Amino acid sequence: MAKLWGGRFQKSAEAWVDEFGASIGFDQQLVLEDIEGSVAHVTMLGAQNILPTEDVSKILEGLVQLKLKAEAGELKFTVANEDIHLNLEKMLIDLIGPVGGKLHTGRSRNDQVATDMHLFLKKRVPEVMGLIENFQNTIINQAEQHIDTIAPGYTHLQRAQPISLAHHLMVYFWQLQRDKERFNESMKRIDILPLGAGAMAGTTFPIDRLKSAELLGFADVYANSMDAVSDRDFIVEFLSNSALLMTHLSRFAEEIIIWSTDEFKFIELDDTFSTGSSIMPQKKNPDMAELIRGKAGRAFGNLVGLLTVLKGTPLTYNKDMQEDKEGMFDTMETVLGSLKIFEGMVRTMTVNKPRLHSAVHSDFSNATELADYLATKGMPFREAHEVTGKLVFTCIQQGIYLLDLPLEAMQKESSLIEEDIYAVLAPEAAVSRRNSLGGTGFGQVKIQIEKAKSLLV
Amino acid sequence: MAKLWGGRFQKSAEAWVDEFGASIGFDQQLVLEDIEGSVAHVTMLGAQNILPTEDVSKILEGLVQLKLKAEAGELKFTVANEDIHLNLEKMLIDLIGPVGGKLHTGRSRNDQVATDMHLFLKKRVPEVMGLIENFQNTIINQAEQHIDTIAPGYTHLQRAQPISLAHHLMVYFWQLQRDKERFNESMKRIDILPLGAGAMAGTTFPIDRLKSAELLGFADVYANSMDAVSDRDFIVEFLSNSALLMTHLSRFAEEIIIWSTDEFKFIELDDTFSTGSSIMPQKKNPDMAELIRGKAGRAFGNLVGLLTVLKGTPLTYNKDMQEDKEGMFDTMETVLGSLKIFEGMVRTMTVNKPRLHSAVHSDFSNATELADYLATKGMPFREAHEVTGKLVFTCIQQGIYLLDLPLEAMQKESSLIEEDIYAVLAPEAAVSRRNSLGGTGFGQVKIQIEKAKSLLV
Amino acid sequence: MAKLWGGRFQKSAEAWVDEFGASIGFDQQLVLEDIEGSVAHVTMLGAQNILPTEDVSKILEGLVQLKLKAEAGELKFTVANEDIHLNLEKMLIDLIGPVGGKLHTGRSRNDQVATDMHLFLKKRVPEVMGLIENFQNTIINQAEQHIDTIAPGYTHLQRAQPISLAHHLMVYFWQLQRDKERFNESMKRIDILPLGAGAMAGTTFPIDRLKSAELLGFADVYANSMDAVSDRDFIVEFLSNSALLMTHLSRFAEEIIIWSTDEFKFIELDDTFSTGSSIMPQKKNPDMAELIRGKAGRAFGNLVGLLTVLKGTPLTYNKDMQEDKEGMFDTMETVLGSLKIFEGMVRTMTVNKPRLHSAVHSDFSNATELADYLATKGMPFREAHEVTGKLVFTCIQQGIYLLDLPLEAMQKESSLIEEDIYAVLAPEAAVSRRNSLGGTGFGQVKIQIEKAKSLLV
Amino acid sequence: MAKLWGGRFQKSAEAWVDEFGASIGFDQQLVLEDIEGSVAHVTMLGAQNILPTEDVSKILEGLVQLKLKAEAGELKFTVANEDIHLNLEKMLIDLIGPVGGKLHTGRSRNDQVATDMHLFLKKRVPEVMGLIENFQNTIINQAEQHIDTIAPGYTHLQRAQPISLAHHLMVYFWQLQRDKERFNESMKRIDILPLGAGAMAGTTFPIDRLKSAELLGFADVYANSMDAVSDRDFIVEFLSNSALLMTHLSRFAEEIIIWSTDEFKFIELDDTFSTGSSIMPQKKNPDMAELIRGKAGRAFGNLVGLLTVLKGTPLTYNKDMQEDKEGMFDTMETVLGSLKIFEGMVRTMTVNKPRLHSAVHSDFSNATELADYLATKGMPFREAHEVTGKLVFTCIQQGIYLLDLPLEAMQKESSLIEEDIYAVLAPEAAVSRRNSLGGTGFGQVKIQIEKAKSLLV
Repeated sequence: MAKLWGGRFQKSAEAWVDEFGASIGFDQQLVLEDIEGSVAHVTMLGAQNILPTEDVSKILEGLVQLKLKAEAGELKFTVANEDIHLNLEKMLIDLIGPVGGKLHTGRSRNDQVATDMHLFLKKRVPEVMGLIENFQNTIINQAEQHIDTIAPGYTHLQRAQPISLAHHLMVYFWQLQRDKERFNESMKRIDILPLGAGAMAGTTFPIDRLKSAELLGFADVYANSMDAVSDRDFIVEFLSNSALLMTHLSRFAEEIIIWSTDEFKFIELDDTFSTGSSIMPQKKNPDMAELIRGKAGRAFGNLVGLLTVLKGTPLTYNKDMQEDKEGMFDTMETVLGSLKIFEGMVRTMTVNKPRLHSAVHSDFSNATELADYLATKGMPFREAHEVTGKLVFTCIQQGIYLLDLPLEAMQKESSLIEEDIYAVLAPEAAVSRRNSLGGTGFGQVKIQIEKAKSLLV
Repeated sequence: MAKLWGGRFQKSAEAWVDEFGASIGFDQQLVLEDIEGSVAHVTMLGAQNILPTEDVSKILEGLVQLKLKAEAGELKFTVANEDIHLNLEKMLIDLIGPVGGKLHTGRSRNDQVATDMHLFLKKRVPEVMGLIENFQNTIINQAEQHIDTIAPGYTHLQRAQPISLAHHLMVYFWQLQRDKERFNESMKRIDILPLGAGAMAGTTFPIDRLKSAELLGFADVYANSMDAVSDRDFIVEFLSNSALLMTHLSRFAEEIIIWSTDEFKFIELDDTFSTGSSIMPQKKNPDMAELIRGKAGRAFGNLVGLLTVLKGTPLTYNKDMQEDKEGMFDTMETVLGSLKIFEGMVRTMTVNKPRLHSAVHSDFSNATELADYLATKGMPFREAHEVTGKLVFTCIQQGIYLLDLPLEAMQKESSLIEEDIYAVLAPEAAVSRRNSLGGTGFGQVKIQIEKAKSLLV
Repeated sequence: MAKLWGGRFQKSAEAWVDEFGASIGFDQQLVLEDIEGSVAHVTMLGAQNILPTEDVSKILEGLVQLKLKAEAGELKFTVANEDIHLNLEKMLIDLIGPVGGKLHTGRSRNDQVATDMHLFLKKRVPEVMGLIENFQNTIINQAEQHIDTIAPGYTHLQRAQPISLAHHLMVYFWQLQRDKERFNESMKRIDILPLGAGAMAGTTFPIDRLKSAELLGFADVYANSMDAVSDRDFIVEFLSNSALLMTHLSRFAEEIIIWSTDEFKFIELDDTFSTGSSIMPQKKNPDMAELIRGKAGRAFGNLVGLLTVLKGTPLTYNKDMQEDKEGMFDTMETVLGSLKIFEGMVRTMTVNKPRLHSAVHSDFSNATELADYLATKGMPFREAHEVTGKLVFTCIQQGIYLLDLPLEAMQKESSLIEEDIYAVLAPEAAVSRRNSLGGTGFGQVKIQIEKAKSLLV
Repeated sequence: MAKLWGGRFQKSAEAWVDEFGASIGFDQQLVLEDIEGSVAHVTMLGAQNILPTEDVSKILEGLVQLKLKAEAGELKFTVANEDIHLNLEKMLIDLIGPVGGKLHTGRSRNDQVATDMHLFLKKRVPEVMGLIENFQNTIINQAEQHIDTIAPGYTHLQRAQPISLAHHLMVYFWQLQRDKERFNESMKRIDILPLGAGAMAGTTFPIDRLKSAELLGFADVYANSMDAVSDRDFIVEFLSNSALLMTHLSRFAEEIIIWSTDEFKFIELDDTFSTGSSIMPQKKNPDMAELIRGKAGRAFGNLVGLLTVLKGTPLTYNKDMQEDKEGMFDTMETVLGSLKIFEGMVRTMTVNKPRLHSAVHSDFSNATELADYLATKGMPFREAHEVTGKLVFTCIQQGIYLLDLPLEAMQKESSLIEEDIYAVLAPEAAVSRRNSLGGTGFGQVKIQIEKAKSLLV
């Protein structure tokens, strides 16, 4: 195809420059969106009598054929035609003749490509939200099975206080809930149509942008044509939301990896989500968790990439913006894949209950109980903390735990301590007594899970 | 003050380690938030009969005194007391005696610091939104004065089509509008109280978290205590939203800088927002615009910083999280300052109307008019584009513009061109005819401005 | 192929998990490096009598065949075999039978993949350096043609002082020179062989790592096997160096774009490196410069991505590290392409000398001359600066330039000014008088260019 | 002080704009560098007879006084004087009268600030290198004490093969060695003086830049004055090198944290480098390691920040570049502090040898020994791997380890296995037999440590 803007130029571009500038290598992923946008555009052109019905019909027939071929993977794209828009236009003209060229009436590649990207995210972001919800359901299911499973709770990766394992797992429900909220809010800014903005100033043709929006299912159109072609906020927002989602998955992955070590052994992953070693036969590696932990990096990188691209660019369209697509595609694939894998990994993992039971019975995570016990009996908390610290130190020196200390040993540090301390120090008691709203007390955890369920449809 | 957790330890930490770990150097910015949170907490403890009224009164009196001193800048913080929480607690005890230690009942530094940060953003993000709105008003005012000012519209920083200057300026209104929306949506996740989560598992004291929330004006409390102390999403979200806002300001700044060059000279900045050179007496530099363009870098860096910190950290609190504050403070200061400066810069800048007038009358930005003219007369657009390209090339060779071409010269390329082409090629006509919804046509720009006004209260 | 680590597993992994974990989609780019490494490894195994000569010969024959096929693009990779290493091993066994399995003796995929990456950069980084040097030569050529071309020099994008255009262009020579230095220094850390580190602890086979290094042309081997398999510094370093190189190209691109505007018009790009618009026939867009300016974003993103991946990972190999490859490939392609394009763009661009001539004769960039003139006559510089500022202001009010001011007008501000001031104010004089070492004086620029040439072989 | 560039301006800048633009808040950290540069500059001016000896003497006396005050912390900076350069100039004039203004002869703030930053890094980067070397010495010392301490070696945080703990620790030696190399190489680009470049074009005064370089101890001067004032590569390079160093510390920190858990308990940190909890008396948190792990984020952020600032800025100086300082100061402080702390933490940590001993005797990290054993006896490695996998699975089902398996059970899977297998399976044997160059074999580790020592002076 002769370059469409060739009239003003005296020398043809060399092949390798063309290739460097071409986007067809990646923007072909927008083939269906591009056709969909064209169908709406030409339908509107017909309804507005900008194109005669006959032309519209021919163009629509051509587009339908292209769509079928696209879905069958039969379209052959070429760098010579730069991008998805010109590739499709050329194919259309080959199919139905020069009338195909009329499709571009009242439209520019600038509003066309922006439309494609809006359509892309308008379809895929709800998929992301669906997978999040799916994963949330899995978390709730695992949590419900482990309300009574007591596990060490950590701060600084040091045992802090015993908790219900359900309580721990539910943290990820809430993180994902916020992710979903953010993706959902971003839809408001995705669901706006740029089509009809032309190259940037609007068009002299009597187009009906609201009609196009209706045909494509958009809630609104851009109020400013220059904004329409230069705005990439909705992509940055997708990348930001994804970076945070991947941060959450990376945090969860870190725990899965730590819990899977020989030393912790709190869970065992299903073979499906583990791999072995080509050299060490005993290995069972939490590969998927590691890979997802790593993939946070890629999501951060794509976000930094697009922010950098946009930073300091004057209005309106600049070729720099062609760099908006690969990062978006890559992050979308990363997010969808990671959510799918993580859900399966959590759904199929086995909790090692005996190990957890022995863990919470052989540590000092009940020390806060002793301090609180003293505080309740009137000792200023700071003093109670000091007394407890001394008793912990005594235990460490003797290689025992607080429950193993004879009453006299305790009373030597404070006469406020009485026989009832042993019941208080039991991990089950420690958990069940933390019944403040949102706390790890078993009753609270049940309430929390019910609340969570009510947020899923 | 003896380290509060010193009971278990046998050796005192060396000063330089203390200093490295201390956060008082920066978290003192949270002094008022920390006091405010303490007031609510102790009030609730009283209401729940966890502390006797007498103790509560003493503590409240002490806190009021500390607040007054804080506001007067009279508090002296010390690294020896690590952070803002321990500094204030020590001061309180110094003021009112050991009863001050009871303030910490049912609370941990983990939920306390999270509360402070929520309070900080709950106050400041609305300030950001207010400054955005202020700036939007200024943009509307400038736009209203320049509806009829025709300027070159650019793509690729090449003149594309003539536009109303108002239309161009209004792009920034819409960018800011989306920024405001995002900040506003983020308030939903800021307006949740972590207080009462304790170290991470909740507390055994019969606290009333909803009461604390009511006292502090929060809409909700965290549903999960472990989430409450490990969540920093609301800060990441603030940093993301700010990074995008700064990207917008950076784009606008780039235009201000380009428009201020000798070569463009489209605007002149007020002396207040310009600076000179210590060596070159003629210089009038758009320093503020450059500085803001540069400050996007800092906003991106702070975002990357916090995402990196959180990535891969297991639950719940880890000391890594202490790194969440400086970036947040820095970005807040950057955003508030940049918005304030930019508003003043745009409010006081002078548009060089004669220069713009001559610019749009001596370029080829009306070439699209000719192509559209031919297309309307039935020539396929691609052919019309080719014909126009040839005529542009002819003009360039002769050093003239399209309006200078005699009719015959045009008709040599296409007989469809008639006398009425000259009216079509006038920049005023080019602008006014782009009356598609959201286009640059004068009527459309007026409608757009009205719509914009209706979005500001 | 049955999973090589399948013995310990009871359930086969589902296809979609396999696909998520597989790297063959991208690490097939290492096919030649992987074969090359295997050739050296098996040759060494033979030399050490670890494998019998017969086996070695068979394996080498198989590898040669695979290499030929790889070069002809005839190898078919499959996700079922995970990665490039297992794909090739399977193909080898298919070709030459079970003896192919012996290739893996004393080797692990951990040291194998690290070896492939070292080989990749060992080949490509010198290519980058070659393209940099090529570009530097082009810059020198352009500079040599423009030693006498006077152009406005800018600070803050405001005209500051007149300069030799050669001086301006040469800045990019020096930036690139530093880039080349850094890439060259990084070779020291690329040129170290990890092969022989095994899974991480070394091997019990009597291998000869120095022999392998010699065969592959490496200067050294890793001194610590655990370091060998967990080190990705050399990739980070490549990405850092590339990010800075792309920053330089992005700065140069910004200038190309600004110089190409209608308003500046200092240069005209060759048609080969420009593109037009599908809707605006008059456009000649500096697309390549914009695209390269944008591609800095991708380079930054890839750097952030890998730093994030590595951050916080314990020793030794973790699956997160699989994320090291795509960014490296992408940045390599970006850097090679950008350098090639930029060189051509600069080589073929035309400098608009009349425009530059008129530019330097109609601005205040000679104001420093006046101030220096006064300072030389004994006036304190600060006062000279003040006097000059007033005269500039007078000119602006009258719409003239300093050279247009009558002598009396100048003398009104300072009696030190005499007739010889007019010679001093001429742009040619301003340039030629800045003859301090490294300054823009014509003589200095010539010396500079000679120095630059001497740095290229 | 009246603005030094005020002559051309009619309206004084409002205070809050001044404050936004002022850099004195942070660039006062360059006070000594700024004075040092001035001393050299004025000395050169005297030597070149540009200033009379008398003036030079007065200025030098003034500068000496300012230096003494600066070192005593007695200088009072003010925002009204913008930056460190104008603050010092004003102070100098206050001290010695108007002659102080002559110091600025043949110099601009553009080359002055660049000089200050070069001086800053020229002093501090060697400090960084010194602290790295100090830390390397500590690592060697710890390693030497633990050559015979066998520990589990990990891949995927799963036990892989037993190793010498020294071997593991030494990985960090080599990482740091590469860091040091990079910092050292960067000195080449730091050690170049920009002074004398003037605002950007050089100066008309007969200055002697090589003299200034000699006085300040610089190896070279910038060859291009425009490069001299617009180059910030040396800072980016410092930030890149620091980001990678912090990545290394973050990786080591992750291990320290994991090794300090109750579950691993491989080491115990000294109390000095641990902290407790205000609520949980038993806690001993590896706070310093966590904090350093987190501080990698800040280093990445500062790097991203500066790259972003520079990206797309035209030559030469733009105000954006003022943003180069805070990140540099912050990263310098971070790096120096982190190295100091980490060295102390590693020096004082205690290795839990009994724990490590029991660890390596109760896992499957000797499985590779069995596979290698079979391979040595002629079984293709892939088959050996399969056989071993089955035996591991058998053990897991019975809750035993390979050394516990009776010979018959092993021979059932392969008759190649004989009595000598038990010696092979002992962890000590596993380690000692990995005697390939750079492997974990005790002999190799000793050689490695000697090599490492030879690299330190």
